Amino acid sequence: MDETAGTRRVATDYVECLERRDWAGLTALLAEDVVYDMPQTRERIRGRAAFVQFNAEYPGDWHLRVRRLVADGRFAAVWLDVRVGDDRLDACVWVDVDERGRVERITDYWPESYDPPAGRDHLVERW
Amino acid sequence: MDETAGTRRVATDYVECLERRDWAGLTALLAEDVVYDMPQTRERIRGRAAFVQFNAEYPGDWHLRVRRLVADGRFAAVWLDVRVGDDRLDACVWVDVDERGRVERITDYWPESYDPPAGRDHLVERW
Repeated sequence: MDETAGTRRVATDYVECLERRDWAGLTALLAEDVVYDMPQTRERIRGRAAFVQFNAEYPGDWHLRVRRLVADGRFAAVWLDVRVGDDRLDACVWVDVDERGRVERITDYWPESYDPPAGRDHLVERW
Repeated sequence: MDETAGTRRVATDYVECLERRDWAGLTALLAEDVVYDMPQTRERIRGRAAFVQFNAEYPGDWHLRVRRLVADGRFAAVWLDVRVGDDRLDACVWVDVDERGRVERITDYWPESYDPPAGRDHLVERW
């Protein structure tokens, strides 16, 4: 398995372990000093134990489905369809894998809905 | 050049043409029936001419820099550092390339800053 295929496998497993609440499986995918960044809130979690705990404690009946997964060398990008009860949102996740094939950095974006600005409706349709 | 390398080139050129305001260059990268989606506002632009016009008319002195570009077959994901005057924001862009090597779909996310929810500060540091 080449580096890109390994990264694709790890990023896929990462989402599947979260969805299954498989904390032992998740732990096995992560570097001990993994860093998890949420740039929108400027929050950072350092270390495998804290990151697994963060997910285990995360409130709500959340579910993840991969819309797209793009892997390239040691980097992956995952476009997620997230459901929490009746709410739906998309997430963009950037995954870095280290030379041993473990996840060493995760950067999550949670884009929220907003109203379109004025002045472009001559070019745009809404759905 | 294999498919992934071609996609990487097209996605890189896409950002560079936007940054240079090179509308002829941008046009040459796009399929005639390109679709541009902004899921946060549920806006869609159909067709190369409208999409180029949208960018040419986009207000503000905006500048784009690639933080990361991940290419995989006919898909790319681009993590952008965007500056508009003194404002800084990140964007996540999903690019689909058709079998002729032209961009056929672009999906843009513009995640905004927000305050972190309570209850996780025992695991999190702020930057």
